[in-house]
Amino acid sequence: MRVPFIKMHGLGNDFVVLDARREAIPAVTSMIAARIADRRTGIGCDQLVILEPADAADFRMRILNADGGEVEACGNATRAVSMLHGASATIETAAGLLRAEPGNDGATVDMGIPRFEWQDIPLAYAMDTLAMPVGWDGLENPAAVNVGNPHVVFFVADCDAVPLESLGPTIEHDPLFPNRINVNVATVENRTRIRLRVWERGAGLTRACGTGACATAVAAMRRGLVDRSVEVKLPGGVLQIDWGQDERIAMTGPATESYRGTFEWDHFA
Amino acid sequence: MRVPFIKMHGLGNDFVVLDARREAIPAVTSMIAARIADRRTGIGCDQLVILEPADAADFRMRILNADGGEVEACGNATRAVSMLHGASATIETAAGLLRAEPGNDGATVDMGIPRFEWQDIPLAYAMDTLAMPVGWDGLENPAAVNVGNPHVVFFVADCDAVPLESLGPTIEHDPLFPNRINVNVATVENRTRIRLRVWERGAGLTRACGTGACATAVAAMRRGLVDRSVEVKLPGGVLQIDWGQDERIAMTGPATESYRGTFEWDHFA
Repeated sequence: MRVPFIKMHGLGNDFVVLDARREAIPAVTSMIAARIADRRTGIGCDQLVILEPADAADFRMRILNADGGEVEACGNATRAVSMLHGASATIETAAGLLRAEPGNDGATVDMGIPRFEWQDIPLAYAMDTLAMPVGWDGLENPAAVNVGNPHVVFFVADCDAVPLESLGPTIEHDPLFPNRINVNVATVENRTRIRLRVWERGAGLTRACGTGACATAVAAMRRGLVDRSVEVKLPGGVLQIDWGQDERIAMTGPATESYRGTFEWDHFA
Repeated sequence: MRVPFIKMHGLGNDFVVLDARREAIPAVTSMIAARIADRRTGIGCDQLVILEPADAADFRMRILNADGGEVEACGNATRAVSMLHGASATIETAAGLLRAEPGNDGATVDMGIPRFEWQDIPLAYAMDTLAMPVGWDGLENPAAVNVGNPHVVFFVADCDAVPLESLGPTIEHDPLFPNRINVNVATVENRTRIRLRVWERGAGLTRACGTGACATAVAAMRRGLVDRSVEVKLPGGVLQIDWGQDERIAMTGPATESYRGTFEWDHFA
């Protein structure tokens, strides 16, 4: 069985998209996901995205890591799928229904309403999530935000000077975070621009993290450091984050098709 | 312009093959090669392989690194191209004419006649290439062989115990080797089997190096450690090396198609 796919990326976060909206494909086991995701002997990707029919939405989007585990939310993948779909859509995901709108320079995706209660992050015990009285080796008083996944955000004078490759794993696995945590180090450049680096839970340093950009922008807005519409500059590129009066986050940024192909299902099964 | 390609690998060494034997493609500049080879925003590969018409051979094969530089010889790529061609062929390469023969379990490739003179490796000054009176941190008395590219081979009790990630770059850049060198650490298991790890010049530790397997097998044969037909077990898999009475090396091993695709030339140009 010959299976078609589309290879896409959003700011360097890359996806193999399997479009099963019209024709079903066999179940993607964790072994098959790992074989497809292998960058030398497979197709190579950070995540597999599977599009399926949905009852109460235009279609359903599932996001699998290379270990076969399902991811709740991925802003980069949602933008990529929006560009592929080519029209406004309501998308069913593990994190609920999302609206996505493709444009000329990229797609705008509704990232939902952020949560700030300590139980929602979750933290191990009660504290103020806007200025947490904790610190790790010079990183102090972060904010915590859940935008579908949990984030802690440190505002520093120069985020490029932070040894995130060593501090990231320490903070990710601190007992304060029962579900572990994504670690953001951010520098506010002015009221409409933030520079950001992210240590992603389970993935390490990445070129761009859409949910990290949302969490960081919202934390900076709550602290009064920036306006309700900001650019977030990540190593892989720039995302525009708007936090509306309805409390929903809108993320706008590029996503691109790299190539299209087909593979023999049995080669990876 | 929509350009078709085939993605292949030989023991995990992976290639984007552009088949321009019937329809020409535009020139692949170093910028375009780098963009295609990028594993997140491009197609992703170790090398680009371009097939072109030839006057005095069945076809011509060019091998480009991600920096656009041309590679003289690559056994893994030659096996892949042989499987793709699907019949015996004489292939014109930068290292001369090569014969390749596809079979059921992989392809057999003529890797040419090895050279052992110190000027041929090349070394900086005259010495016996069968047992060189030099050493680096416990690695002693290597052999040197040129099989289209230069190799030094150390025979050790357990090649898996050698810290090749630190010693490899030191030896590669030693002034003894004016063109730098590929560094092989090998353990002879019996008269028909060698275990091998390779630090590849300019590429570092790789899963499998076809020319390293040839150089190591021939060095072991010259020292009388093994028969003229051996299996070489690399981290990525096994290669069969035969050194014929005509002094030519034959390498047999697997190569596989992963998938096929097409891309917009302008996307990477």
